[in-house]
Amino acid sequence: VPDEARAALADGGVIAASVSGALEGVSQAAGAWLADAAAQGARFEVTGDATGTVPALLAAGLPVAPVVHLGRTDRRALASAPQAELLRTAPAPVVFRAPAADLAVLAEVLAGSAEDRRIAVPDGHADLGHGVRWLPLSEAAGAVGGEEEGVFVLAPPERAAWNVDLRPLVPLLVEQGVTARTLSTVLRPFGISRRDLYDALGDAQGSREKK
Amino acid sequence: VPDEARAALADGGVIAASVSGALEGVSQAAGAWLADAAAQGARFEVTGDATGTVPALLAAGLPVAPVVHLGRTDRRALASAPQAELLRTAPAPVVFRAPAADLAVLAEVLAGSAEDRRIAVPDGHADLGHGVRWLPLSEAAGAVGGEEEGVFVLAPPERAAWNVDLRPLVPLLVEQGVTARTLSTVLRPFGISRRDLYDALGDAQGSREKK
Repeated sequence: VPDEARAALADGGVIAASVSGALEGVSQAAGAWLADAAAQGARFEVTGDATGTVPALLAAGLPVAPVVHLGRTDRRALASAPQAELLRTAPAPVVFRAPAADLAVLAEVLAGSAEDRRIAVPDGHADLGHGVRWLPLSEAAGAVGGEEEGVFVLAPPERAAWNVDLRPLVPLLVEQGVTARTLSTVLRPFGISRRDLYDALGDAQGSREKK
Repeated sequence: VPDEARAALADGGVIAASVSGALEGVSQAAGAWLADAAAQGARFEVTGDATGTVPALLAAGLPVAPVVHLGRTDRRALASAPQAELLRTAPAPVVFRAPAADLAVLAEVLAGSAEDRRIAVPDGHADLGHGVRWLPLSEAAGAVGGEEEGVFVLAPPERAAWNVDLRPLVPLLVEQGVTARTLSTVLRPFGISRRDLYDALGDAQGSREKK
Protein backbone atom coordinates (compact mmCIF):
# COMPACT_ATOMS: atom_id res chain seq x y z
CA VAL A 1 0.00 0.00 0.00
CA PRO A 2 1.52 3.37 -0.98
CA ASP A 3 2.25 5.80 1.85
CA GLU A 4 -0.43 8.27 0.75
CA ALA A 5 -3.06 5.51 0.71
CA ARG A 6 -1.87 4.29 4.10
CA ALA A 7 -2.18 7.80 5.51
CA ALA A 8 -5.62 8.25 3.97
CA LEU A 9 -6.79 4.97 5.54
CA ALA A 10 -5.39 6.01 8.92
CA ASP A 11 -7.43 9.22 8.64
CA GLY A 12 -10.58 7.28 7.81
CA GLY A 13 -10.39 8.41 4.20
CA VAL A 14 -11.71 6.66 1.14
CA ILE A 15 -9.52 5.14 -1.56
CA ALA A 16 -10.99 4.04 -4.83
CA ALA A 17 -8.93 1.19 -6.22
CA SER A 18 -10.03 -0.33 -9.49
CA VAL A 19 -8.89 -3.57 -11.02
CA SER A 20 -9.33 -4.43 -14.66
CA GLY A 21 -11.28 -7.62 -15.24
CA ALA A 22 -12.59 -10.01 -12.63
CA LEU A 23 -11.14 -10.04 -9.13
CA GLU A 24 -10.48 -13.75 -9.56
CA GLY A 25 -7.70 -12.86 -11.98
CA VAL A 26 -5.86 -10.20 -9.98
CA SER A 27 -2.09 -10.58 -9.76
CA GLN A 28 -0.36 -11.71 -6.58
CA ALA A 29 0.97 -8.17 -6.13
CA ALA A 30 -2.51 -6.66 -6.38
CA GLY A 31 -3.81 -9.34 -4.02
CA ALA A 32 -1.08 -8.53 -1.49
CA TRP A 33 -1.97 -4.83 -1.80
CA LEU A 34 -5.63 -5.58 -1.04
CA ALA A 35 -4.75 -7.82 1.91
CA ASP A 36 -2.42 -5.16 3.29
CA ALA A 37 -5.13 -2.52 2.97
CA ALA A 38 -7.51 -4.85 4.82
CA ALA A 39 -4.96 -5.20 7.62
CA GLN A 40 -4.91 -1.36 7.81
CA GLY A 41 -8.64 -1.42 8.44
CA ALA A 42 -9.81 -0.55 4.91
CA ARG A 43 -13.47 -1.13 4.18
CA PHE A 44 -14.51 -2.60 0.86
CA GLU A 45 -17.26 -2.10 -1.65
CA VAL A 46 -17.46 -4.11 -4.86
CA THR A 47 -19.79 -2.93 -7.59
CA GLY A 48 -21.92 -5.59 -9.17
CA ASP A 49 -21.66 -8.03 -6.26
CA ALA A 50 -25.20 -8.57 -5.03
CA THR A 51 -24.22 -11.20 -2.47
CA GLY A 52 -21.76 -9.16 -0.40
CA THR A 53 -19.37 -12.10 -0.33
CA VAL A 54 -16.58 -10.53 -2.37
CA PRO A 55 -16.19 -7.40 -0.19
CA ALA A 56 -16.39 -9.64 2.91
CA LEU A 57 -13.50 -11.76 1.64
CA LEU A 58 -11.45 -8.70 0.74
CA ALA A 59 -12.15 -7.08 4.11
CA ALA A 60 -11.00 -10.34 5.73
CA GLY A 61 -7.71 -9.93 3.85
CA LEU A 62 -8.33 -13.01 1.74
CA PRO A 63 -8.18 -13.62 -2.00
CA VAL A 64 -11.53 -14.23 -3.68
CA ALA A 65 -10.42 -17.75 -4.66
CA PRO A 66 -9.95 -20.51 -3.70
CA VAL A 67 -13.01 -20.22 -1.51
CA VAL A 68 -16.09 -22.25 -0.61
CA HIS A 69 -19.42 -20.46 -1.10
CA LEU A 70 -22.35 -21.77 0.92
CA GLY A 71 -24.63 -18.99 -0.27
CA ARG A 72 -27.53 -17.96 1.91
CA THR A 73 -27.91 -20.51 4.63
CA ASP A 74 -29.16 -21.09 8.17
CA ARG A 75 -28.54 -23.28 11.21
CA ARG A 76 -30.39 -26.26 9.76
CA ALA A 77 -28.50 -26.19 6.45
CA LEU A 78 -25.14 -25.50 8.15
CA ALA A 79 -25.56 -28.65 10.26
CA SER A 80 -26.44 -30.87 7.32
CA ALA A 81 -24.21 -32.54 4.72
CA PRO A 82 -22.52 -31.29 2.60
CA GLN A 83 -22.30 -27.88 4.29
CA ALA A 84 -21.17 -29.35 7.63
CA GLU A 85 -18.47 -31.33 5.89
CA LEU A 86 -17.24 -28.31 3.93
CA LEU A 87 -17.11 -26.31 7.17
CA ARG A 88 -15.17 -29.06 8.93
CA THR A 89 -12.65 -29.98 6.32
CA ALA A 90 -12.34 -27.68 3.30
CA PRO A 91 -8.77 -26.36 3.07
CA ALA A 92 -10.09 -22.94 1.98
CA PRO A 93 -12.12 -20.17 3.63
CA VAL A 94 -15.88 -20.79 3.74
CA VAL A 95 -18.09 -17.75 3.12
CA PHE A 96 -21.82 -17.67 3.79
CA ARG A 97 -24.74 -15.40 4.60
CA ALA A 98 -26.81 -16.35 7.64
CA PRO A 99 -28.64 -14.89 10.63
CA ALA A 100 -26.01 -14.00 13.21
CA ALA A 101 -27.81 -16.09 15.85
CA ASP A 102 -27.29 -19.17 13.71
CA LEU A 103 -23.52 -19.05 14.20
CA ALA A 104 -24.06 -20.92 17.46
CA VAL A 105 -24.62 -24.14 15.52
CA LEU A 106 -21.02 -24.01 14.22
CA ALA A 107 -19.66 -25.03 17.62
CA GLU A 108 -21.65 -28.26 17.32
CA VAL A 109 -20.82 -28.81 13.67
CA LEU A 110 -17.11 -28.36 14.29
CA ALA A 111 -17.15 -30.40 17.49
CA GLY A 112 -13.67 -30.72 18.98
CA SER A 113 -11.95 -28.37 16.55
CA ALA A 114 -14.10 -25.26 17.13
CA GLU A 115 -11.58 -23.74 19.51
CA ASP A 116 -8.93 -23.56 16.82
CA ARG A 117 -11.06 -21.88 14.18
CA ARG A 118 -11.42 -18.18 13.50
CA ILE A 119 -14.29 -16.41 11.82
CA ALA A 120 -14.59 -12.95 10.27
CA VAL A 121 -17.79 -11.19 11.34
CA PRO A 122 -19.17 -7.89 9.98
CA ASP A 123 -17.74 -4.87 11.75
CA GLY A 124 -20.43 -2.22 11.73
CA HIS A 125 -22.87 -1.72 8.91
CA ALA A 126 -22.03 -2.37 5.30
CA ASP A 127 -23.32 1.07 4.25
CA LEU A 128 -19.83 2.35 5.10
CA GLY A 129 -18.32 -0.37 2.96
CA HIS A 130 -17.73 -3.84 4.28
CA GLY A 131 -15.32 -4.29 7.19
CA VAL A 132 -14.74 -7.34 9.39
CA ARG A 133 -13.41 -8.37 12.78
CA TRP A 134 -11.68 -11.72 13.19
CA LEU A 135 -12.81 -13.60 16.29
CA PRO A 136 -12.24 -17.07 17.72
CA LEU A 137 -15.29 -19.06 16.68
CA SER A 138 -16.15 -19.75 20.31
CA GLU A 139 -16.69 -16.01 20.90
CA ALA A 140 -18.43 -15.17 17.62
CA ALA A 141 -21.96 -16.27 18.48
CA GLY A 142 -21.90 -14.25 21.68
CA ALA A 143 -20.27 -11.24 20.04
CA VAL A 144 -22.74 -10.79 17.20
CA GLY A 145 -26.06 -12.60 17.79
CA GLY A 146 -29.48 -11.43 16.71
CA GLU A 147 -31.64 -12.36 13.77
CA GLU A 148 -30.01 -9.90 11.40
CA GLU A 149 -28.26 -11.54 8.50
CA GLY A 150 -24.56 -11.07 7.92
CA VAL A 151 -21.84 -12.40 5.67
CA PHE A 152 -19.35 -14.51 7.60
CA VAL A 153 -16.00 -15.99 6.59
CA LEU A 154 -14.77 -19.07 8.45
CA ALA A 155 -11.01 -19.58 8.19
CA PRO A 156 -9.96 -23.06 7.10
CA PRO A 157 -8.57 -25.58 9.62
CA GLU A 158 -4.89 -24.86 10.11
CA ARG A 159 -3.61 -28.28 9.23
CA ALA A 160 -5.65 -29.88 6.55
CA ALA A 161 -3.51 -33.02 6.22
CA TRP A 162 -5.85 -34.65 8.71
CA ASN A 163 -8.78 -34.44 6.34
CA VAL A 164 -8.83 -37.86 4.84
CA ASP A 165 -11.26 -40.19 3.19
CA LEU A 166 -11.90 -42.64 6.00
CA ARG A 167 -13.02 -45.51 3.83
CA PRO A 168 -9.56 -47.02 3.22
CA LEU A 169 -8.78 -46.53 6.91
CA VAL A 170 -11.71 -48.58 8.17
CA PRO A 171 -10.47 -52.02 7.05
CA LEU A 172 -6.97 -51.17 8.34
CA LEU A 173 -8.43 -50.50 11.78
CA VAL A 174 -10.42 -53.72 11.66
CA GLU A 175 -7.26 -55.65 10.72
CA GLN A 176 -5.61 -54.16 13.81
CA GLY A 177 -8.36 -55.61 15.97
CA VAL A 178 -10.73 -52.64 16.29
CA THR A 179 -14.28 -53.97 16.22
CA ALA A 180 -16.89 -52.78 13.76
CA ARG A 181 -19.05 -51.94 16.77
CA THR A 182 -16.42 -49.56 18.14
CA LEU A 183 -16.01 -47.93 14.75
CA SER A 184 -19.76 -47.54 14.43
CA THR A 185 -19.84 -45.76 17.81
CA VAL A 186 -17.04 -43.33 17.09
CA LEU A 187 -18.05 -42.60 13.49
CA ARG A 188 -21.66 -41.74 14.22
CA PRO A 189 -20.89 -38.12 15.26
CA PHE A 190 -19.23 -37.67 11.87
CA GLY A 191 -22.44 -38.42 10.02
CA ILE A 192 -21.34 -41.92 9.04
CA SER A 193 -24.06 -44.48 9.58
CA ARG A 194 -23.67 -48.14 10.50
CA ARG A 195 -24.83 -48.92 6.96
CA ASP A 196 -22.08 -46.70 5.46
CA LEU A 197 -19.56 -48.47 7.66
CA TYR A 198 -20.57 -51.95 6.60
CA ASP A 199 -20.60 -50.82 2.97
CA ALA A 200 -17.00 -49.66 3.39
CA LEU A 201 -16.03 -52.95 5.01
CA GLY A 202 -17.90 -54.84 2.32
CA ASP A 203 -16.15 -52.94 -0.47
CA ALA A 204 -12.78 -53.66 1.11
CA GLN A 205 -13.56 -57.37 1.46
CA GLY A 206 -14.90 -57.42 -2.09
CA SER A 207 -11.75 -55.86 -3.51
CA ARG A 208 -9.61 -58.23 -1.43
CA GLU A 209 -11.49 -61.26 -2.78
CA LYS A 210 -11.02 -59.98 -6.32
CA LYS A 211 -7.24 -60.15 -5.95
CA VAL B 1 -40.68 -25.02 -16.68
CA PRO B 2 -43.98 -23.84 -18.19
CA ASP B 3 -45.02 -25.44 -21.50
CA GLU B 4 -44.60 -22.22 -23.47
CA ALA B 5 -41.07 -21.79 -22.14
CA ARG B 6 -40.31 -25.43 -22.90
CA ALA B 7 -41.58 -24.98 -26.47
CA ALA B 8 -39.59 -21.77 -26.89
CA LEU B 9 -36.42 -23.55 -25.72
CA ALA B 10 -37.09 -26.44 -28.09
CA ASP B 11 -37.34 -23.90 -30.94
CA GLY B 12 -34.05 -22.29 -29.92
CA GLY B 13 -35.87 -19.26 -28.57
CA VAL B 14 -34.77 -16.93 -25.81
CA ILE B 15 -36.45 -16.68 -22.43
CA ALA B 16 -35.66 -13.87 -20.08
CA ALA B 17 -36.12 -15.06 -16.51
CA SER B 18 -35.40 -12.60 -13.74
CA VAL B 19 -34.96 -13.30 -10.07
CA SER B 20 -35.20 -10.69 -7.38
CA GLY B 21 -32.12 -10.42 -5.25
CA ALA B 22 -29.02 -12.57 -5.42
CA LEU B 23 -29.12 -15.99 -7.06
CA GLU B 24 -27.73 -17.45 -3.83
CA GLY B 25 -31.10 -16.81 -2.26
CA VAL B 26 -33.42 -18.30 -4.89
CA SER B 27 -36.11 -20.61 -3.61
CA GLN B 28 -35.94 -24.36 -4.13
CA ALA B 29 -38.76 -24.08 -6.67
CA ALA B 30 -36.93 -21.43 -8.68
CA GLY B 31 -33.75 -23.50 -8.46
CA ALA B 32 -35.58 -26.56 -9.77
CA TRP B 33 -36.98 -24.44 -12.63
CA LEU B 34 -33.48 -23.30 -13.58
CA ALA B 35 -32.08 -26.83 -13.41
CA ASP B 36 -34.97 -28.11 -15.52
CA ALA B 37 -34.37 -25.36 -18.10
CA ALA B 38 -30.67 -26.33 -18.16
CA ALA B 39 -31.66 -29.95 -18.83
CA GLN B 40 -33.74 -28.68 -21.81
CA GLY B 41 -30.59 -27.11 -23.22
CA ALA B 42 -31.21 -23.53 -22.11
CA ARG B 43 -28.21 -21.21 -22.33
CA PHE B 44 -27.56 -18.73 -19.55
CA GLU B 45 -26.42 -15.17 -19.25
CA VAL B 46 -26.09 -13.43 -15.88
CA THR B 47 -25.70 -9.67 -15.82
CA GLY B 48 -23.02 -8.37 -13.52
CA ASP B 49 -21.07 -11.61 -13.34
CA ALA B 50 -17.62 -10.81 -14.73
CA THR B 51 -16.21 -14.27 -13.97
CA GLY B 52 -18.63 -16.37 -16.03
CA THR B 53 -18.90 -18.85 -13.17
CA VAL B 54 -22.54 -18.23 -12.30
CA PRO B 55 -23.91 -18.87 -15.82
CA ALA B 56 -21.63 -21.93 -16.06
CA LEU B 57 -23.12 -23.37 -12.87
CA LEU B 58 -26.67 -22.64 -14.01
CA ALA B 59 -26.00 -24.16 -17.44
CA ALA B 60 -24.67 -27.23 -15.64
CA GLY B 61 -28.02 -27.47 -13.86
CA LEU B 62 -26.49 -26.72 -10.47
CA PRO B 63 -27.37 -24.25 -7.74
CA VAL B 64 -24.89 -21.39 -7.27
CA ALA B 65 -24.12 -22.61 -3.74
CA PRO B 66 -22.72 -24.63 -2.09
CA VAL B 67 -19.83 -24.51 -4.51
CA VAL B 68 -16.05 -24.29 -4.43
CA HIS B 69 -14.52 -21.44 -6.45
CA LEU B 70 -10.92 -21.87 -7.52
CA GLY B 71 -10.97 -18.68 -9.59
CA ARG B 72 -8.61 -18.35 -12.51
CA THR B 73 -6.16 -21.17 -12.32
CA ASP B 74 -3.82 -23.35 -14.35
CA ARG B 75 -2.24 -26.80 -14.33
CA ARG B 76 0.41 -25.87 -11.78
CA ALA B 77 -2.07 -24.38 -9.31
CA LEU B 78 -4.59 -27.20 -9.85
CA ALA B 79 -1.95 -29.76 -8.86
CA SER B 80 -0.89 -27.94 -5.70
CA ALA B 81 -2.49 -27.84 -2.25
CA PRO B 82 -5.13 -26.71 -1.40
CA GLN B 83 -6.66 -26.79 -4.89
CA ALA B 84 -5.79 -30.45 -5.41
CA GLU B 85 -7.36 -31.38 -2.10
CA LEU B 86 -10.51 -29.41 -2.87
CA LEU B 87 -10.76 -31.13 -6.26
CA ARG B 88 -10.31 -34.55 -4.66
CA THR B 89 -12.57 -34.31 -1.68
CA ALA B 90 -14.92 -31.32 -1.57
CA PRO B 91 -18.53 -32.54 -1.39
CA ALA B 92 -19.63 -29.71 -3.69
CA PRO B 93 -19.05 -28.81 -7.35
CA VAL B 94 -15.72 -27.10 -8.06
CA VAL B 95 -15.82 -24.29 -10.62
CA PHE B 96 -12.73 -22.72 -12.17
CA ARG B 97 -11.41 -20.88 -15.20
CA ALA B 98 -8.40 -22.42 -16.89
CA PRO B 99 -6.85 -23.08 -20.29
CA ALA B 100 -8.65 -26.08 -21.73
CA ALA B 101 -5.34 -27.88 -22.27
CA ASP B 102 -4.70 -27.75 -18.54
CA LEU B 103 -7.61 -30.11 -17.82
CA ALA B 104 -5.20 -32.98 -18.52
CA VAL B 105 -3.61 -32.46 -15.11
CA LEU B 106 -6.88 -33.38 -13.38
CA ALA B 107 -6.42 -37.04 -14.24
CA GLU B 108 -3.19 -36.99 -12.22
CA VAL B 109 -4.60 -34.91 -9.40
CA LEU B 110 -7.59 -37.21 -9.02
CA ALA B 111 -5.52 -40.36 -9.45
CA GLY B 112 -7.67 -43.44 -8.98
CA SER B 113 -11.00 -41.64 -8.83
CA ALA B 114 -10.81 -39.77 -12.14
CA GLU B 115 -12.93 -42.35 -13.91
CA ASP B 116 -15.90 -41.70 -11.69
CA ARG B 117 -15.88 -37.92 -12.00
CA ARG B 118 -17.80 -35.82 -14.51
CA ILE B 119 -16.99 -32.32 -15.68
CA ALA B 120 -19.09 -29.68 -17.45
CA VAL B 121 -17.21 -28.06 -20.33
CA PRO B 122 -18.32 -25.04 -22.39
CA ASP B 123 -20.58 -25.96 -25.29
CA GLY B 124 -19.89 -23.48 -28.07
CA HIS B 125 -19.07 -19.86 -27.47
CA ALA B 126 -20.47 -17.88 -24.59
CA ASP B 127 -21.62 -15.06 -26.90
CA LEU B 128 -24.82 -17.08 -27.33
CA GLY B 129 -25.15 -17.37 -23.57
CA HIS B 130 -23.33 -20.01 -21.59
CA GLY B 131 -24.12 -23.66 -22.29
CA VAL B 132 -22.27 -26.77 -21.16
CA ARG B 133 -21.74 -30.41 -22.01
CA TRP B 134 -21.17 -32.95 -19.24
CA LEU B 135 -18.36 -35.37 -20.01
CA PRO B 136 -16.53 -38.07 -18.10
CA LEU B 137 -13.34 -36.41 -16.88
CA SER B 138 -11.24 -38.94 -18.77
CA GLU B 139 -12.66 -37.63 -22.08
CA ALA B 140 -12.70 -33.93 -21.27
CA ALA B 141 -9.06 -33.09 -21.99
CA GLY B 142 -9.27 -34.75 -25.38
CA ALA B 143 -12.67 -33.25 -26.19
CA VAL B 144 -11.81 -29.62 -25.56
CA GLY B 145 -8.04 -28.94 -25.52
CA GLY B 146 -6.28 -25.84 -26.77
CA GLU B 147 -4.93 -22.83 -24.98
CA GLU B 148 -8.25 -21.00 -24.92
CA GLU B 149 -9.59 -20.42 -21.43
CA GLY B 150 -12.93 -21.80 -20.38
CA VAL B 151 -15.02 -22.10 -17.25
CA PHE B 152 -15.27 -25.69 -16.07
CA VAL B 153 -17.40 -27.32 -13.39
CA LEU B 154 -16.16 -30.55 -11.81
CA ALA B 155 -18.90 -32.59 -10.16
CA PRO B 156 -18.17 -33.68 -6.59
CA PRO B 157 -17.20 -37.25 -5.74
CA GLU B 158 -20.36 -39.28 -5.38
CA ARG B 159 -19.93 -40.23 -1.75
CA ALA B 160 -18.11 -37.53 0.08
CA ALA B 161 -19.45 -38.01 3.60
CA TRP B 162 -16.37 -40.02 4.46
CA ASN B 163 -13.94 -37.15 4.16
CA VAL B 164 -13.49 -36.10 7.75
CA ASP B 165 -11.00 -34.31 9.92
CA LEU B 166 -9.51 -37.19 11.85
CA ARG B 167 -8.29 -35.19 14.82
CA PRO B 168 -11.51 -35.32 16.89
CA LEU B 169 -11.82 -39.00 16.00
CA VAL B 170 -8.46 -39.99 17.43
CA PRO B 171 -9.28 -39.46 21.13
CA LEU B 172 -12.65 -41.17 20.63
CA LEU B 173 -10.87 -44.25 19.30
CA VAL B 174 -8.43 -44.19 22.21
CA GLU B 175 -11.33 -43.97 24.66
CA GLN B 176 -12.76 -47.08 23.02
CA GLY B 177 -9.55 -48.96 23.76
CA VAL B 178 -7.66 -48.56 20.47
CA THR B 179 -3.97 -48.08 21.27
CA ALA B 180 -1.97 -45.09 20.07
CA ARG B 181 0.44 -47.59 18.53
CA THR B 182 -2.31 -49.10 16.40
CA LEU B 183 -3.44 -45.65 15.31
CA SER B 184 0.10 -44.69 14.44
CA THR B 185 0.39 -47.78 12.24
CA VAL B 186 -2.82 -47.26 10.34
CA LEU B 187 -2.48 -43.49 9.97
CA ARG B 188 1.02 -43.52 8.51
CA PRO B 189 -0.15 -44.27 4.94
CA PHE B 190 -2.36 -41.15 5.19
CA GLY B 191 0.62 -38.87 5.71
CA ILE B 192 -0.01 -38.49 9.43
CA SER B 193 3.13 -38.87 11.49
CA ARG B 194 3.47 -40.27 15.00
CA ARG B 195 4.23 -36.71 16.10
CA ASP B 196 0.98 -35.42 14.52
CA LEU B 197 -0.88 -38.21 16.29
CA TYR B 198 0.53 -37.41 19.70
CA ASP B 199 -0.16 -33.73 19.10
CA ALA B 200 -3.82 -34.60 18.45
CA LEU B 201 -3.96 -36.75 21.56
CA GLY B 202 -2.18 -34.09 23.61
CA ASP B 203 -4.61 -31.42 22.49
CA ALA B 204 -7.55 -33.60 23.43
CA GLN B 205 -6.07 -34.36 26.85
CA GLY B 206 -5.27 -30.71 27.34
CA SER B 207 -8.82 -29.62 26.62
CA ARG B 208 -10.15 -32.37 28.89
CA GLU B 209 -7.97 -31.24 31.76
CA LYS B 210 -9.20 -27.67 31.30
CA LYS B 211 -12.75 -28.77 32.11
